[in-house]
Amino acid sequence: MEIAQKAETAKQASISLAAVKTELKNKALDAIAKAIEKQKEQIIAANKTDLTAAEKNKLPSPLLKRLKFDEKKINEVCAAIESLIKLDDPVGKILAVTQLDDGLELFKVSCPIGVIGMIFESRPDALVQISTLCLKSGNAVLLKGGSEAANTNKILAGIIEQAAKDYLPDGWIQLLQTREDVAAMLKLDEYIDLIVPRGSNQFVKFIMDNTNIAVLGHADGICHVYVNADADIEMAVKITVDSKCQYVAVCNAAETLLVDDKITKEFLPKVKAALEKQGVEIRGCEKTRKIIDVKEATEEDWRTEYLDLILSIKIVSGIDEAIGHINRYGSKHTDAIVTGDKEKAEKFMDLVDSACVFWNCSTRFNDGYRFGLGAEVGISTNKIHARGPVGLEGLMIYKWKLLGKGQTVEDYSIGKKQFRHRKIK
Amino acid sequence: MEIAQKAETAKQASISLAAVKTELKNKALDAIAKAIEKQKEQIIAANKTDLTAAEKNKLPSPLLKRLKFDEKKINEVCAAIESLIKLDDPVGKILAVTQLDDGLELFKVSCPIGVIGMIFESRPDALVQISTLCLKSGNAVLLKGGSEAANTNKILAGIIEQAAKDYLPDGWIQLLQTREDVAAMLKLDEYIDLIVPRGSNQFVKFIMDNTNIAVLGHADGICHVYVNADADIEMAVKITVDSKCQYVAVCNAAETLLVDDKITKEFLPKVKAALEKQGVEIRGCEKTRKIIDVKEATEEDWRTEYLDLILSIKIVSGIDEAIGHINRYGSKHTDAIVTGDKEKAEKFMDLVDSACVFWNCSTRFNDGYRFGLGAEVGISTNKIHARGPVGLEGLMIYKWKLLGKGQTVEDYSIGKKQFRHRKIK
Repeated sequence: MEIAQKAETAKQASISLAAVKTELKNKALDAIAKAIEKQKEQIIAANKTDLTAAEKNKLPSPLLKRLKFDEKKINEVCAAIESLIKLDDPVGKILAVTQLDDGLELFKVSCPIGVIGMIFESRPDALVQISTLCLKSGNAVLLKGGSEAANTNKILAGIIEQAAKDYLPDGWIQLLQTREDVAAMLKLDEYIDLIVPRGSNQFVKFIMDNTNIAVLGHADGICHVYVNADADIEMAVKITVDSKCQYVAVCNAAETLLVDDKITKEFLPKVKAALEKQGVEIRGCEKTRKIIDVKEATEEDWRTEYLDLILSIKIVSGIDEAIGHINRYGSKHTDAIVTGDKEKAEKFMDLVDSACVFWNCSTRFNDGYRFGLGAEVGISTNKIHARGPVGLEGLMIYKWKLLGKGQTVEDYSIGKKQFRHRKIK
Repeated sequence: MEIAQKAETAKQASISLAAVKTELKNKALDAIAKAIEKQKEQIIAANKTDLTAAEKNKLPSPLLKRLKFDEKKINEVCAAIESLIKLDDPVGKILAVTQLDDGLELFKVSCPIGVIGMIFESRPDALVQISTLCLKSGNAVLLKGGSEAANTNKILAGIIEQAAKDYLPDGWIQLLQTREDVAAMLKLDEYIDLIVPRGSNQFVKFIMDNTNIAVLGHADGICHVYVNADADIEMAVKITVDSKCQYVAVCNAAETLLVDDKITKEFLPKVKAALEKQGVEIRGCEKTRKIIDVKEATEEDWRTEYLDLILSIKIVSGIDEAIGHINRYGSKHTDAIVTGDKEKAEKFMDLVDSACVFWNCSTRFNDGYRFGLGAEVGISTNKIHARGPVGLEGLMIYKWKLLGKGQTVEDYSIGKKQFRHRKIK
C-alpha cells in the first residue's frame, strides 16, 4: 500500500475506533500481550537478524543495546500492557457540563485526537509501547521505526494487528518501513492529526521544520540546579550529584550548576570533590576558577546539552540572576532550586519558564513513571497542549456535545428566551 | 523598535507577567476601561481618519462596518472588560496533586503560555478584546491589526499600555503596524509561543503554512444538519432554517442539509417553502431534484462554505451515509442531527469527528458566549490543545512543581525508597 493510502485507511479506522468500548480495547490489549508471549521465539529470531546486520554495519554499541529485544524486554513490554489494561479509559470522560437553558445541555467530553504518526528510533519496545498507548486512547497509529529494526518491527506490528483483529476496526495500526515514508508522512496533514517523534534533538527539530502537522516533541534538555544562599550545603551536593550523574545520557540530567556567590567558598570545594569522585569533568566561569581548580567554561557551555559526565558551573549574584540565566540559556525542560527559603523557592518556581520546576530535589525526577502518570508518550517542551512528561492524556482532546429539544438561536437573539448558563460540573 | 526587539521585550515581560497577582491585573483592567471611556473623543476622531481613508480607498461596505468604532462599540468593549474583571483568574489553578512519597509532592499548576501573537482583521474592538484577554490570562501579546485601522489601533494600544503601566511589567503589549511585520513575526519562534490569527480561511491557512509556531486557528466552517428518519419534521424545518439563515456570514452557519430517504416526500417540500421564504437558493442532489424543483448540486457544493443564502441538499440512505459524508466533506466544525432516537443521536455524536456535535438544536449555538465561556478567543478546528469555542483556557498551559526535602532518584533506583503515588487531587 502507498503511504497516503495507509494514512487514509488509518483515518477511516480512527473514526470507529473512537467509539470502541473499553471492554473490547482491554480484550485487544490482553490478546496482544498473550500473542507476543506466545510468539517470542519468532520475535527473538527476527531481532537476531536485525542485530547481526547492525553488527555487520558497525552500529555504535549504545544503538545495538537499544536494538536488542530479548526475553527480558519481552516480559517488560507484556507487563506494561497488563498495567495499561488496568488504567482508566481516557475516552468519554465528562470534563464539564453546563445547562445553557431548560432542556439545552452542553457536555465537554474527552475523545481521541484521531491519527497519531509516531516516528521512533531503533528500540522495538517503543513500537509495542506506543501502539498499545494509542489503542487504549482510541487513536489509530502510523508507526515509522528505524530501518535497523526492520525485521523486529515487522513481526511485532504483524502480531499486534493480528491479535487485535477480532476487537478493533481494520487498519488502525499501520507500519511504515522506508526512509522516504517519513518525508511523505510529514505532508499528510489531511489524515494525520499529531506527530510524536522520538530521537535526537536535531531529528525532532527537522520534523518540526518540515511539517504543518502538530508535533508533540521535546527539544534539548539543558537543565539547571541552582544552589541558593539559603541552601543546606550537604543537600545541595547530593542533589547536584544525582541530577548530573544518576544517568547522564538523558534529557533530565543537569548540565549547568548555578551557585550563589555568598556560599561559594563552602560549597564549591565540597561539590567538586563529590563530582570528581563520579568522574565528572567540571568547567567553571571565571569566578568559579578563582575558588576551585577547574577547566574554563565559555558562553558555548551555557547552551550545551552534554549528555555526558561534564558539568558547567556559574556563580550568580542571587536568585534574579539565576532565573535570568535559566530563562535565557535553558531549554524549558527541568530546573531545580536548592534553598531553605520558601519564598525564594516559590519565586523560582513561578518565574522559571520551564515545564518542570523543582524545589529541593533532583532534576532526574522528571519522568512519567516517577510522576505516577503510568506509561509515558514522551517529555514535551511544547508550550501548548501538553507539557513535561506526557501520559495517555497527551493523546486526548475533547468535543462539545449539545443536547437540545429543537432550540434555535433566533429565539435567544430576539429575547424570546434567555440563557441561564448553570454550571453543573 | 525592530519587530524582533519588540518580541524579545514581550518575552521578557511575559516572565514577570506570569506571576502578577490577580488584584493588580484586575486594577489594570479597570484602569484600561476607564481610560478608554475618558478618551473616547480622541478614539472616535482617530477612527474617523481611518474611515475616511477607507471610504476613499473604496473598501467594501461590510469591511467599513467592521472598521467603525463609535460610542456604542466603545461602551461594549468597556462592558466586556468589566465582565472580564469578574471572571476567575485562570493562572495558578492547581489541576492535580500527587504525593510521590513522604515529603515529595507534585503539583500540576495552570500558567500562561507566554507570548501570544495575535493577527486580526480591521475590527478595532478585537484589539481591545484580545489584549485584555491576554492580560487577564497573564500572557504578553504582539498585536498585528489591519492597516485600514492603523490610527484607531495605535491610539487604543497606546491608551491600554499607558493605563496599565502602574500595575504590569513594561512591554507586555506591543503593536505591530506594517504588513512586513506579519512575515517577520512568523519566524520568531524563539519569542512567540502561539499565534492566533483571525480572518479569512485562506489567510489562516497561509499563516499555518508559513510558520513553525503553534497556530490556534479555525479553518472553514462547512457545517451540516442531518435530518434522520425519526426526526420531528416541524423541528427539523425550524432547525434547518435557523442553522442556515439566522446569520449567514459566519462559520457556524449550515451549508449542507442531509436528509434520510424515508422522509423526503414529507420533509423536502416543507423545508423548501420555509427556506425560500428567507430567500435561500437551494441546490439539490439528483434524488432531491426528483422531489422538489431546485438547482443542481455538484461535487463542488459539498466542499463549499457559501457564507451566503445558499444551501445544498443531499439525500442519504441512513445515519451511516450521513456520518460518512460529514467526515469526508465537513470541516470538523459543527454538525447537528435531528432525530427522536436517542441511540442514533449518540452514534452520530460519537462518530462525527467535529469540534461540536449537536442533537436537536441549531448549529448556530457554537459560540463562546452562548456556551457560557465568557469572552472568546476564537473557534478552533485544531485537533490538539483547544477545540471549538475557545475562552481564556485556550491561552493557558500548565507547569509541574515538585516540592521535596532533598530526595535523589538514586535512592529510588536502588530500592532504598519506594514511590507511593498517592493521588491527593
